[in-house]
Amino acid sequence: MATQNLFLLPGDGIGTEIMAEVQKLIDWLNANGKTDFATDTGLVGGCAYDKHGAAISEEDMAKALKADAVIFGAVGGPKWDNVPYEVRPEAGLLRLRKDLGLFANLRPAICYPALADASSLKRELVEGLDILIVRELTGGVYFGEPKEITDLGNGQKRAVDTQVYETYEIDRIARVAFDLAGTRSKKVHMADKKNVMKSGVLWSEVVASVAKDFPAIKYEHILADNAAMQLVRNPKQFDVMVTDNLFGDILSDAAAMLTGSLGMLPSASLGAPDAATGKRKALYEPVHGSAPDIAGKGIANPIAMIASFAMALRYSFNMIELADKLEAAIAGVLADGLRTGDIAQDGKKTVGTEEMGAAILAKL
Amino acid sequence: MATQNLFLLPGDGIGTEIMAEVQKLIDWLNANGKTDFATDTGLVGGCAYDKHGAAISEEDMAKALKADAVIFGAVGGPKWDNVPYEVRPEAGLLRLRKDLGLFANLRPAICYPALADASSLKRELVEGLDILIVRELTGGVYFGEPKEITDLGNGQKRAVDTQVYETYEIDRIARVAFDLAGTRSKKVHMADKKNVMKSGVLWSEVVASVAKDFPAIKYEHILADNAAMQLVRNPKQFDVMVTDNLFGDILSDAAAMLTGSLGMLPSASLGAPDAATGKRKALYEPVHGSAPDIAGKGIANPIAMIASFAMALRYSFNMIELADKLEAAIAGVLADGLRTGDIAQDGKKTVGTEEMGAAILAKL
Ligand SMILES: CC(C)[C@H](C(=O)O)[C@@H](O)C(=O)O
Ligand SMILES: CC(C)[C@H](C(=O)O)[C@@H](O)C(=O)O
Repeated sequence: MATQNLFLLPGDGIGTEIMAEVQKLIDWLNANGKTDFATDTGLVGGCAYDKHGAAISEEDMAKALKADAVIFGAVGGPKWDNVPYEVRPEAGLLRLRKDLGLFANLRPAICYPALADASSLKRELVEGLDILIVRELTGGVYFGEPKEITDLGNGQKRAVDTQVYETYEIDRIARVAFDLAGTRSKKVHMADKKNVMKSGVLWSEVVASVAKDFPAIKYEHILADNAAMQLVRNPKQFDVMVTDNLFGDILSDAAAMLTGSLGMLPSASLGAPDAATGKRKALYEPVHGSAPDIAGKGIANPIAMIASFAMALRYSFNMIELADKLEAAIAGVLADGLRTGDIAQDGKKTVGTEEMGAAILAKL
Repeated sequence: MATQNLFLLPGDGIGTEIMAEVQKLIDWLNANGKTDFATDTGLVGGCAYDKHGAAISEEDMAKALKADAVIFGAVGGPKWDNVPYEVRPEAGLLRLRKDLGLFANLRPAICYPALADASSLKRELVEGLDILIVRELTGGVYFGEPKEITDLGNGQKRAVDTQVYETYEIDRIARVAFDLAGTRSKKVHMADKKNVMKSGVLWSEVVASVAKDFPAIKYEHILADNAAMQLVRNPKQFDVMVTDNLFGDILSDAAAMLTGSLGMLPSASLGAPDAATGKRKALYEPVHGSAPDIAGKGIANPIAMIASFAMALRYSFNMIELADKLEAAIAGVLADGLRTGDIAQDGKKTVGTEEMGAAILAKL
């Protein structure tokens, strides 16, 4: 078994605590000969700013670029609310996405059966919910130029952001979505605002043309505002939804919250396959944030972080069986009645971060 | 009583049917000496394109500019899916908003008590819900330039949309939100993506400074993705939410759908007070669309359209008492158990568009 390099970036807030549970898992897997991971740990976000004056240091960027996969916690917190824009915590994450070319962000919104009642939606609307949002992650308004604030004098300023997409960027993310739909319920929705945005017009054109290459997949266009409505009204009508960076940010968060399982949801961000090796650069991170309010208390839910590691096993290392087992272990401890504070339930046992991590490891 | 001019633009799909119920109301109010409205009717959207080759004719634009208020139905339908971008149905609505300077879009998301069970959310989360989304309507990515698609050759195109905001545009919409919050629960949230967008940075700066002029109002910033989540998780935490054109489009639709009362929700779009007369230009329209699938069947729900007319009475003509009565009449027929097909309920009577309109008029 060749050694695989994992670069861990716990980040801020609860990041360190939940990453510690992943580290324990890795140690156990290595010790039992299931894997041969070499791990290194870096700083990103507010903690990197405190140490290096940047949201990620050049040294850590170089390590991320060399790693077989990056495992990312969460960044940000009130402490860094007023640092300069260029070095704010999020800038570290955005640079990783951009410099690693992680254009495909997979955000599963699934409803863990044990948690269906935690959803704000009626049980029958979310039970069995399984949506995959495929979000474009290196283009659009997140990175387009100009992106600036100009002082016009007289107390007036002018702020500009630019949404830019080229055909190839839309084409490649659409293909990821259709490929994945082929392994699922064979349905793709694409959400844009083609009725007001030229980028939407191009998205519609390109995705409709990609759809022709996948005759077995049902394809439907949906306006982004209607998508937000339909997610609330009847989320189970969706299988795979592909969309741009900004709509993906909002729609995937809404979808995640619908499930009632927000603290449980992982995500994967993948690059293009390397021409020589076929390997994709990849970063795995929980959908939730750094939760500064509960950081350091040992009560954060480590499941989304562990599930993100399971996605790494699946997508970066092709360890399908191990990923399946790890995901089953998560579902298992939930079925056994263990809960962290965020998903506490009457009649279930509330445990801390370490206890939850240990229970999943034991189950495995 | 001075004659007031209403310009009616029913538009496409169910627009004509639901506007007919408003016309009956106006006729009755005039006949009974409660109002002195003069009405004129024009074309907008697909029907205007069919007749004039434009989404609204210059003649109708001139009438809209002269009217005391525009009452707007809905535009669009599959018939016009492939007309040129510049003359698509939505272009008529966007031109009205821009040329009339209707920068303040008020979208109440209220849950009619009789309909709380129609929400996909659990009853206790939406019962009594009353959010007002204040959406900026004449700026941002809807109108910023450049907005274009360039052919790069080699089968590649490049699409660009531009999000632009100047200080004064943010300042004036923020003041509308804080003023309105003063008449409600005294809480304003502002949603942006200041962690990735420079326009968000400017919004945050300007709205925080406006907030200082309203010490009695509680002000909180929220990221737009988190706003989408929180709307789903616990919508009742919100009172007034002010946001930009694009986020407002998506968040207001999500909020509307949460209530279970989508077919019931009106909106008002207001301009700046005229320097001489103090009057604001205004357009009133239902939140729902043209519903081409049920058009012409006489089954559309006219309530959102009638409630939009009630908003016109309130905001354009200061007929507060009459507006209150009309809104009470709507709540009354619902309490009596009348429903249109979209909100049909076991044990309640399902009626058509005309019957619903007549019942509201009778109640009045
Ligand atoms: C932290 C922030 C920059 C980021 C985004 O907007 O993409 C986050 O919201 C996400 O969805 O991963
Ligand atoms: C019809 C369309 C252009 C419009 C918009 O995007 O503003 C609609 O969705 C709305 O919310 O009023």
